[in-house]
Amino acid sequence: MAAKFVSERNIKFLLYEVFDVESLTKYEYYSEHNRKMFDMVLKAAVKLGKDLLFPLFEEMDRNQPELVNGEVKVHPSVKTIMKEFGEGGWISSRVPVDQDGEQLPSMVADICEFIFAAANYSANAYPGLTFGASHLIESFGSKDLYDTYVPRMHAGEWQGTMALTEPEAGSSLADITTMAEPTDSGHYLIKGQKIFISAGDHDGVENVVHLMLAKITGAPAGVKGISLFVVPKKRIAADGALVSNDVAASGVYHKLGYRGCPIVQLSIGDKNDCRGWLVGEPHSGLKYMFQMMNEARIGVGMGATAMATAAYYAALDYSKTRLQGRKLSRKDPNLPPVPIIEHADVKRMLLFQRAVVEGAQSLLMHCSKLVDFQKVLDGEAKEKYHLLLEILTPVAKSYPSEMGIQSISQGLQCLGGSGYCDDYPLEQYYRDCRIHPIHEGTTGIQGMDLLGRKVIMKNGQAFLLYINEVHDTTAAAGEFKVLEKFAHELNESLTKLQEVTQHLIALAGQDGPEAFLADATLYLEFFGIITIAWQWLLQGIAVQKALNNGAGKKDLDFYAGKLFTLRYFFGYELPKIEGLVKRLLDDDRLTVEMQTEHFND
Amino acid sequence: MAAKFVSERNIKFLLYEVFDVESLTKYEYYSEHNRKMFDMVLKAAVKLGKDLLFPLFEEMDRNQPELVNGEVKVHPSVKTIMKEFGEGGWISSRVPVDQDGEQLPSMVADICEFIFAAANYSANAYPGLTFGASHLIESFGSKDLYDTYVPRMHAGEWQGTMALTEPEAGSSLADITTMAEPTDSGHYLIKGQKIFISAGDHDGVENVVHLMLAKITGAPAGVKGISLFVVPKKRIAADGALVSNDVAASGVYHKLGYRGCPIVQLSIGDKNDCRGWLVGEPHSGLKYMFQMMNEARIGVGMGATAMATAAYYAALDYSKTRLQGRKLSRKDPNLPPVPIIEHADVKRMLLFQRAVVEGAQSLLMHCSKLVDFQKVLDGEAKEKYHLLLEILTPVAKSYPSEMGIQSISQGLQCLGGSGYCDDYPLEQYYRDCRIHPIHEGTTGIQGMDLLGRKVIMKNGQAFLLYINEVHDTTAAAGEFKVLEKFAHELNESLTKLQEVTQHLIALAGQDGPEAFLADATLYLEFFGIITIAWQWLLQGIAVQKALNNGAGKKDLDFYAGKLFTLRYFFGYELPKIEGLVKRLLDDDRLTVEMQTEHFND
Repeated sequence: MAAKFVSERNIKFLLYEVFDVESLTKYEYYSEHNRKMFDMVLKAAVKLGKDLLFPLFEEMDRNQPELVNGEVKVHPSVKTIMKEFGEGGWISSRVPVDQDGEQLPSMVADICEFIFAAANYSANAYPGLTFGASHLIESFGSKDLYDTYVPRMHAGEWQGTMALTEPEAGSSLADITTMAEPTDSGHYLIKGQKIFISAGDHDGVENVVHLMLAKITGAPAGVKGISLFVVPKKRIAADGALVSNDVAASGVYHKLGYRGCPIVQLSIGDKNDCRGWLVGEPHSGLKYMFQMMNEARIGVGMGATAMATAAYYAALDYSKTRLQGRKLSRKDPNLPPVPIIEHADVKRMLLFQRAVVEGAQSLLMHCSKLVDFQKVLDGEAKEKYHLLLEILTPVAKSYPSEMGIQSISQGLQCLGGSGYCDDYPLEQYYRDCRIHPIHEGTTGIQGMDLLGRKVIMKNGQAFLLYINEVHDTTAAAGEFKVLEKFAHELNESLTKLQEVTQHLIALAGQDGPEAFLADATLYLEFFGIITIAWQWLLQGIAVQKALNNGAGKKDLDFYAGKLFTLRYFFGYELPKIEGLVKRLLDDDRLTVEMQTEHFND
Repeated sequence: MAAKFVSERNIKFLLYEVFDVESLTKYEYYSEHNRKMFDMVLKAAVKLGKDLLFPLFEEMDRNQPELVNGEVKVHPSVKTIMKEFGEGGWISSRVPVDQDGEQLPSMVADICEFIFAAANYSANAYPGLTFGASHLIESFGSKDLYDTYVPRMHAGEWQGTMALTEPEAGSSLADITTMAEPTDSGHYLIKGQKIFISAGDHDGVENVVHLMLAKITGAPAGVKGISLFVVPKKRIAADGALVSNDVAASGVYHKLGYRGCPIVQLSIGDKNDCRGWLVGEPHSGLKYMFQMMNEARIGVGMGATAMATAAYYAALDYSKTRLQGRKLSRKDPNLPPVPIIEHADVKRMLLFQRAVVEGAQSLLMHCSKLVDFQKVLDGEAKEKYHLLLEILTPVAKSYPSEMGIQSISQGLQCLGGSGYCDDYPLEQYYRDCRIHPIHEGTTGIQGMDLLGRKVIMKNGQAFLLYINEVHDTTAAAGEFKVLEKFAHELNESLTKLQEVTQHLIALAGQDGPEAFLADATLYLEFFGIITIAWQWLLQGIAVQKALNNGAGKKDLDFYAGKLFTLRYFFGYELPKIEGLVKRLLDDDRLTVEMQTEHFND
C-alpha cells in the first residue's frame, strides 16, 4: 500500500525548525548525535511503518484476538513485529548506551513512535507498552529484577504491561483488592482479578511481564496502601525453565476498535501459586506507577494524534481525487465537475483536521523536548521543565484524544457515504480512536488532574510558568508583522485564562471541592484550545523565520499552507473559548445541585 | 430485554402538554380522534418496539446482510417486521381513512416512528422507506400506478426505496446518468447504476419498488432534466405473474453501523429489459422527489434523536448502578463508593445527553405539528406553517444528526472501558449514528440549503416568520418569573442571529456566493443551537403551567428534572453561539482563498 499516513516534511519542520532538536547535541549526554543520524533514524522508522505496520492495519482489525484454550491468539504478525522492534533497537531507543540502548532524544524516539502509531496504532501498542514497563523496572526495581526482565523486554521477547484496573476499581484505584501476601522467600503471593489489560496475554511472545498494582496484607486503606509488583505470566524455575506463574487469561474483550491489540481479563493466583516481586518500597506503588502512567498518557495523546494524522491524509487524498459538483460561482451543469477539495466547505473540513493534528503534534513534540531538557539540565532549570511537563500532561493526553475523534469524524465526512463503508479506512480510524478519551485516565479524570492538582500545585508555580512560556511566545511572534494580530489574540486569551482560573480557585475556597471541580472538564477544554493556539504561534514564528531566511521555492506552498492553518485555528477554533469562558464564570452550580431522582420520569 | 429505550412520560409531556395534539381533534379531518385513542396507539407502538424490534437490535447488527446469488439476504425477522407493520396499519398510519389508512395526525404517527427507531433503527428503515415511497406515488403518480403498487406497499408485502445516488452523483444530483428511453407501450426503458440504496434489495419481501431518478433521452442538462420513475424489481406480466424487471443487486456495502438494513448497489437494465413508469410530468422529478426527501430528512433527524435517546437511557441506567469513587467532599477510602451518577461530571454528561435528545425530540414534534396544521388550515395560515417547516427542515435533519453523535459519545464515555466493549449497546449506537450527517443530504448540504435557500426564500419571509415565532415564545415565557432570565437570553441570541444573517446577506451581494456560503455549516450550527434553546423554553412554559395548575406529587421530579435540563441548555449549550458569532462576523475568507496546492507538503 502506497498510501500516505504521515508527512515527513512536517515532522522535520517540527523537529528542526520549531523545536530545534539539534540544540540538544551540544549537551554531553546527546553529544554523539547529529542531524544526519536523526534523519537516518526517521527514514528507518518510516520504512518500518510502510513495509511492516501499515499493510497490517486492516488485517489486524478484521482478525481480532480470541481466547483459545486459555491463551490469547493474536495475528501471527505480532511475533514479527515484536522481533523487529526488539532487534531494531526500537524498544530501547530511549535507553542509555551503557544499558545497550540507543540513547536517542525523546523528541526523536517519540516521533518514531508517532510514525509507528500512524501506520498501525494497535501494532505499536505491543512494543510501546513493553518499553513503559521496562522503564518502570529500570527506574525503581532492583538490579536483580532488571537483569531478569529488562534485557528480554528490550529484545521484544517478553511483553510488558501495566496492570491496574479491576472490576470494581477503574477510575478509583483506591479500591483495588488484588492482594500480595509476603513470604520469606523474597517474593509475594498475589491473588486477584485485573480487567482491561492491554496486551495482557498473547501468543506473539514467550512471556508477559505485568507491572501490577496490589495491596500487601494489612496495608492502609486507599491509595496509600498500594504497592507495585512485577508479576510475570511465566516465572523462571530453579532449573532455568519458564513455568506457569498462575496468571490466567480469563477473557478477551470484543471492542469497537483498537482490535489489533487484545484487552485481557486476568485471574491471578487462582491456584495460590502466583509469585510477585515488589518494586521499590512497599505502599509507594502508585507513585512509581505514575511514571509509566504519565508516559502512557502522553503516549495516548501521541497515538490519538497519529491516528488522526493518518485519517487526515486519507481524507485529503480522497478530496483531491473525488470529482463532485461545481464551484458555487460557476454552477453551469455543462461544465465538468471539480475535485471536492475546491469547495470551501471541504477545505474548511480539511483545515480543521490539519489544525488539530499538526497543532497536537507540535504540543507532543514540545512535551518530548521538556523530557529531553530535564535530562540534560539541573537545578531550577530542570525543575521548570518538570513543572511545565506536569501541567501539560493532561492537556497532551486529552486534547488529541477528544479532538482526534472530531478530526477523524470530519475526515470520514469528507468521503460521504464512502466514509461509512469499510472499503475505505476512515470507518476503522473512527472506531479505533474512540478508546483514547477512556484509557489511561478518562477525560474527566484529566480535567480534575489539571484543575484540581496541576494548576494549584506548588502554589500555582506550574501555572505561572505556563503563562510565562506562552507570553514569551507572543512577545517573539509580535516581532513579525503577519503574526502581530494572532499574538495579540493569544495574549487576550491568556488574560481570560488567568481570570477564569482565579475565579475558580476563589470558588474552591468558598464552596468547596465539588463546586470547584464541577466544570473541570470544560476548564481542560478551554486550557487545551489556548495551548494549541500557542503551538500554532510557535509554528508561525518558525515559518516567518524560514521565509525571512529565503526559503526555497519548493517549500513555499508548505509554509503558505501552515499560515492558512494558523489563520484557521485562530479564526475558527480559538473563538470557541468565548462560550467556555461564559460558562466557567457562570455561578449556576446546577450539576452539583441536581440529584439522582431528577433523572427519573 | 427489559431495558428502557424511550420515556413514555416524556412523549406524553411533549404530545399533550407542550404541543397539545388534542387541539387538532376540533378540526374535521381529525375529529374522529381523541386522547384515549392516541394513548392506545402509543401503547401499541411501545409494545411492538419492546416485543419485536428491540430484542433484534444487536442480532441484526451481528448478522449483517450479504449478497448471495444475486439477492440480498437479510435477517429472517425482516419478513416478520414488514408483515407486522403492514398488518398493524403502521405503514399507512398517516394515510386517509378512505384510502384504508389510519388518518393519524403526524404528531402521533411520527412519535410512533420515533419509538420504533429508538428500539431498532435499522428495523424501522424498511417500513419507513416504504411509506415514503408509497406517499410519493400517492401524491404525484397516476391512479394506475397507485392501484398497482400502493396497496401492496401499505400491506408490507413490497418494499419501497428512494433511488437517487449514482457512482458519480451523490451530493450533486445534476450529474445523474441513469437514462430513460421512451417506448410506445406507456413505459420507459431504464438503464444505469445506482449506489447506496437503503433496503434496495432483500429477501424479506416479495418485491422492491424503486422511486428512481433518471433522465429521459434528450432531457436538458442538470437538475432541470431529471424525471421520476417507478422502477420495480419485479414487474407484473400479462398473466399477472411477477417477473424479473432487469434490476440486479450488484453489491451490498459493509458499513460501520446501521448494519441491520442493507445498502445496495443496483445495475439497472443490463439486459435492456428494465421498465420504468413515469411519475407525473417529465423533467419534474427532483421537485417531486423533494417531498420524499424532505420527509426523509426529518425522518433522519428523528432517527438520530431516537437512537441517541435509547443510548441516553442505557448510559443513565449504568450511571445509576455502577459504583465508583467517592464524592469530592468526602474522599475517605473507608467510606463505600457511590453510584457514579452522584459525581457532578457524570451528571453533566447525562444532562448534556438529555438536553440534546429531549430538545431535538421537541423540535421534531414541532415539525410534525406544522405538517398537521398544513393539513387542516388554508390560505395564509397554511402558507405560514409551510414556510416554517421549510426553514426548520435542515435544522431538524442536522442538529440531531451532529449532536446525536456527541450525545451518544458522551453516553459511551459514562460507561468508561465498558462503553468501548460490545457487552454493552453503546458501541453499536456510536457506530449506527455516524450515518446521519451523511444520508439524505450531508450536513454541508443542509447548511447551504438553510442559508443559501431557506433564509433568503420569498424575500426572507420564512426567516421572519421563524423570528416571530421564537419571539412569541420568549414573550410567553417572560410571564413566568423562573423563565424570565432564559427568555431574555434567547431574545439576545435572536438579535445576534438577525445581525449575523444581515451581515452574511450583505456579503453575498458584495463578494458573491462562495464567500456567502463558505461558513454555511457554522451558520446552521448557530441556528440549530438557538432553535433548540427555543424548544427548551417551550418545554419550560409547559412545566410552569403544570406546576401552577398543581401538578401531582409523582410528577414533581420529572418537572424539576426538565427545569434542570433547561438550565443546562442555557448555561452550557447556548453560550457556544458566542464563538460562532465571532467567526461568522469575521471577514477573513481563508477557506475561499486557500488553494489545493497549499495542502501539499
